[in-house]
Amino acid sequence: MTVTTAAPVPAAAARPAAGSDACADAGICAPLPVLGRDVSVPLVTGGEVTYAALDYAASAPALQRVWDDVAAYAPYYGSVHRGAGYLSQLSTDLFEQSRETVARFLGCREDDQVVFTRSTTDSLNLLAAALPSGTHVFVFETEHHAALLPWRRAADATVSCLPAPRTPEQAVAALDVALHAAAKGPKLVCVTGASNVTGEIWPVRELAAAAHRHGARIVLDAAQLAPHHAVDIAELDVDWVAFSGHKLYAPFGAGVLAGRADWLREAEPYLAGGGATRTVGRGAHGGLDVEWHTSVARHEAGSPNVIGAYAVASACRALTEAGLDRLAEREQQLLRRLREGLAEIPQVRVLSLFGEDSARVGVLSFVVDGWNSSHFAAALSAEHGIGVRDGLFCAHPLVRVLLDAEPGEPGECGAPDAAPGDRALNAIRVSFGAGTPEEHVTRFLAATRSLVRQGAVWKYRTEAGRCVPLKA
Amino acid sequence: MTVTTAAPVPAAAARPAAGSDACADAGICAPLPVLGRDVSVPLVTGGEVTYAALDYAASAPALQRVWDDVAAYAPYYGSVHRGAGYLSQLSTDLFEQSRETVARFLGCREDDQVVFTRSTTDSLNLLAAALPSGTHVFVFETEHHAALLPWRRAADATVSCLPAPRTPEQAVAALDVALHAAAKGPKLVCVTGASNVTGEIWPVRELAAAAHRHGARIVLDAAQLAPHHAVDIAELDVDWVAFSGHKLYAPFGAGVLAGRADWLREAEPYLAGGGATRTVGRGAHGGLDVEWHTSVARHEAGSPNVIGAYAVASACRALTEAGLDRLAEREQQLLRRLREGLAEIPQVRVLSLFGEDSARVGVLSFVVDGWNSSHFAAALSAEHGIGVRDGLFCAHPLVRVLLDAEPGEPGECGAPDAAPGDRALNAIRVSFGAGTPEEHVTRFLAATRSLVRQGAVWKYRTEAGRCVPLKA
Repeated sequence: MTVTTAAPVPAAAARPAAGSDACADAGICAPLPVLGRDVSVPLVTGGEVTYAALDYAASAPALQRVWDDVAAYAPYYGSVHRGAGYLSQLSTDLFEQSRETVARFLGCREDDQVVFTRSTTDSLNLLAAALPSGTHVFVFETEHHAALLPWRRAADATVSCLPAPRTPEQAVAALDVALHAAAKGPKLVCVTGASNVTGEIWPVRELAAAAHRHGARIVLDAAQLAPHHAVDIAELDVDWVAFSGHKLYAPFGAGVLAGRADWLREAEPYLAGGGATRTVGRGAHGGLDVEWHTSVARHEAGSPNVIGAYAVASACRALTEAGLDRLAEREQQLLRRLREGLAEIPQVRVLSLFGEDSARVGVLSFVVDGWNSSHFAAALSAEHGIGVRDGLFCAHPLVRVLLDAEPGEPGECGAPDAAPGDRALNAIRVSFGAGTPEEHVTRFLAATRSLVRQGAVWKYRTEAGRCVPLKA
Repeated sequence: MTVTTAAPVPAAAARPAAGSDACADAGICAPLPVLGRDVSVPLVTGGEVTYAALDYAASAPALQRVWDDVAAYAPYYGSVHRGAGYLSQLSTDLFEQSRETVARFLGCREDDQVVFTRSTTDSLNLLAAALPSGTHVFVFETEHHAALLPWRRAADATVSCLPAPRTPEQAVAALDVALHAAAKGPKLVCVTGASNVTGEIWPVRELAAAAHRHGARIVLDAAQLAPHHAVDIAELDVDWVAFSGHKLYAPFGAGVLAGRADWLREAEPYLAGGGATRTVGRGAHGGLDVEWHTSVARHEAGSPNVIGAYAVASACRALTEAGLDRLAEREQQLLRRLREGLAEIPQVRVLSLFGEDSARVGVLSFVVDGWNSSHFAAALSAEHGIGVRDGLFCAHPLVRVLLDAEPGEPGECGAPDAAPGDRALNAIRVSFGAGTPEEHVTRFLAATRSLVRQGAVWKYRTEAGRCVPLKA
C-alpha cells in the first residue's frame, strides 16, 4: 500500500466565477470581480471617484478569484522539486498541474511543452535563443518591440522586417511572397494575435498556413489576444504561443511559452544554473563536465516562480469557467459602445491599420485634434479618475505608420498644446477586459467629450518625466 | 501649485515586526511570523502534526508582514511606467521606491544600480551576459551551479575553476595566486557569501581585497547569506551582490542584482523588448534602428514584476526593523542546538569544508551511516512532518568533494538501504531562518535520533521520481 504524501491545496476554486451569471437582462453583463474594483482616487477638481482602470493592455488587475486562489495557497508554499517535505511535494504537484492547466487552456497538442517564463517578452527572447543555426525570421514592422527585436540577437539569424500591411489579406500575401523568396533552411514567422495598439485581430490561421506551406514555423504573440479570446494552438495550427500573466489577470511575475519541444530541447539552456542541470562534474584540465536536462526543466533554471505559475493557471481556470465566448461577446458590446461614442466626436481620430471592419479586441488608440496626447491622458486621470496610457506603446514603427509621422521624440506634456491640425507625435490608448464595468466606458466617453468641448480644468506640465496637474 | 497624483499605498508597514520583542527571557526568542506556521500535515503513522519547514535554503516561507504588505498593495496594482492613471503612477512610484529600499538594505554606493531580476540565477546570468569582451572569470568549484555555470556562456570569456579550498585562508591564497598569474584584461571573481550546502561563511571581504589588488571585479552570490546576515556592499567592498526574493521570505518571483553600473550600461540589453528601448525606427534596407536605454531599464525589458519587487522591498524593511543582528544571534542559538544535538548521534556525519570552527548560517548538510539519504529525508517528512531536502543541492562538485565521492547518479530511494560504512551518494540538508521556532529543531533532532536508533516505521520506494512511503 502506498500513501500519497501530497494532497490538494485548499483552494478557492470551488466557488463559481462571480459575475458570469449576472447578465440575464438585455444590458451588458456584470464584469468578473477584480481587485481594486472599489478603489477610490482623488480628483484635482475635488472629491474622489472610483478608479477606472483602462490600461488592461499593459497590465490587467488580478481577478478576485486569482487572488483568492493565491491567498489560499500561500500558506502551503514550499520549495519545489527535490524538497522531501509535504509542502514541497504539494507545491511541486501544484506547479506541474499549473503547467497542465495552461496546456489545456491553450489546447496544446500532446507533445507540446509549457515553459513558465516571466512574461511574453521573456518567452519570445527564450525562443529567439533557441533558434536553430541560420534561421531566417519574418516579422512585420507592426509588432510590439518584444516580438520585433529579440530575433536580431540570435547570432546567425537573418531577420526580414516586412512593411505594415493595410489589410489582413495583404499580410498573408506579403508573408507568402517573402517566404517563397527565402532560401532553404529553418524559418520562423512571429506574429501578434491582436495588436497592442489598435486591438485589431491578425489573420493568425491564414498566416500559419502560409508559414507551413513554405516549411516555416510560426510563433503567436498572444499577449493581447489570450486575455480576450480563446486561443487554441492546435486549431490555429501555430507552433508556439506566448503570453503574459500580468495581462491575463494574474500579475505575479509569470508568463508562458507553449508549443513544440524540439527546438527548445536542442538549444542551449536559457539560463545556466540549478534545476537545468542533470549532472555537473569535474572535467579535463580543471574544467567542468555539464549534462543538461532535455525536458522543460532545461529552460527553467533557478527556483521557479510557483506562485506566479499557479496564478496563471488559476486565471486560465477562471476564464474558462466564466466562458471565454461569453466574455468576448460582452467585451464586443463594450467595444461597440466605445467606438460609437468616439465616432460622434469629430476631433477624435481612432488609429487603425486594417480599417473600420476589422475584428478587434478591447484595445483602441486614438489622437485628439488640437491636443497633446500626454496632456489629454493626464487630464483623464487627474480630473476624471480614468487610467489610460499615452505614448508609442512599445510599438514605435507601428504607431508612426498609424500617425503618418516621421521618427521623433514625443513632445513633453508641458510643451504648448498642439494646435488644431498639428501632427500628433504620440497617441492615447484605452483598453479593457473582463473586469471592466460599463460605467468605465460611459465615464471615459463623457470625459473625452467634456475635454474636447470644454478643455481641461487644470494645466499640465512635465515633472520628473511625469505629466502633472498645475492649477490653471 | 502642483498636486502629487500618487499617494502612498495603504500598507501594513506601520505594524511592528511581530516576534521581535518576544525574547525577554533567557530562551530563544520567538520567530518572526511566517505564512504556513500553523499548517498541519498528515503523518503516515497516523494523526497530524504542524509542518516543520526546514528547507529555507531552497525557498523560505513568506513573512506574514510581506504577505500583508502584498495584500494591502494588490488592489492598487496598476501598469507601471507610461500609464497615465493614478494607480499606474502609484505603482511606478512603489516599484522605484522598492529599488531604493533594496539599495539601502544592501548599503549600496551612490552610483550603484539595483536591477530587479527573477532570482539569483537570473542575476548571475545577467551579469555573465554583461561581461566585457575577453573577461577572465575565477570561480571555486564549490559554488552553486547558478554561480558556477553562467560564465561559460559568455562568448569570449575564460573561466578558471579553482579547486575546493579547505580553509578560508586557502581560498584567499588560491585566488591571489590565480589572479596574479592571469593576463591583463577584465577579470571577475564570483563567490558565495555562505554555502548552500554547508552554511559555511566565505571570507568575502578578504576575497574582495584580493580581487581588487589584482584589478579584478567581484560579485557576491548572497542567496544564502542575505536571509541570515547583514550584507553591506560598500563595507564588504564587492562590486555586485545577487540574491533571491524566494529565499528572503518574499516568494513572488523577483530577485536582485545590485552594484556597479558601468558593465551593465555598456552591455547588450539582457532581454530585447519594450521598456528597454528608447526609440525604434525604420533603418536602412528595411531594417530597424534601435536605441536602447542606458539606465537600469536597459536590462528590465517587459512589464516588471511589481508585486515581486515590492515583496522583496517589504522583506528588506521587515528584516531591518526586526534587527538583522538580533535575528542572526537567534539563528546562531538554534544552530548551536542543532549541531550539539547531531554531534551526539555517532551515525551522523555533518559535511564541512572549513571545519568545526567555521562561521556558519542556518544551513547544514549531513549523511547518516547505513542510510540512503533520500529514504531518510522521506521518513522525516512522512513520519515526523519535517520538510528537509535530499540530493546534491545544485552544487554537485562541492557535494562530491564533501562526500569524497566520484561523480555518479544518486541512488533511487527504493534501492536497498545503504549498509553501514557504504559511501553516501547524496546528502540531507536541513536549513532554517527567522521563521523557525525552536520546536522544529527539537523535533528534527528527536526524529533523527529515533530514525537512527529504531529505524523508520514504513518502507520507502521511488515512484515517479519521488520517494513515497510503503507500508512495512
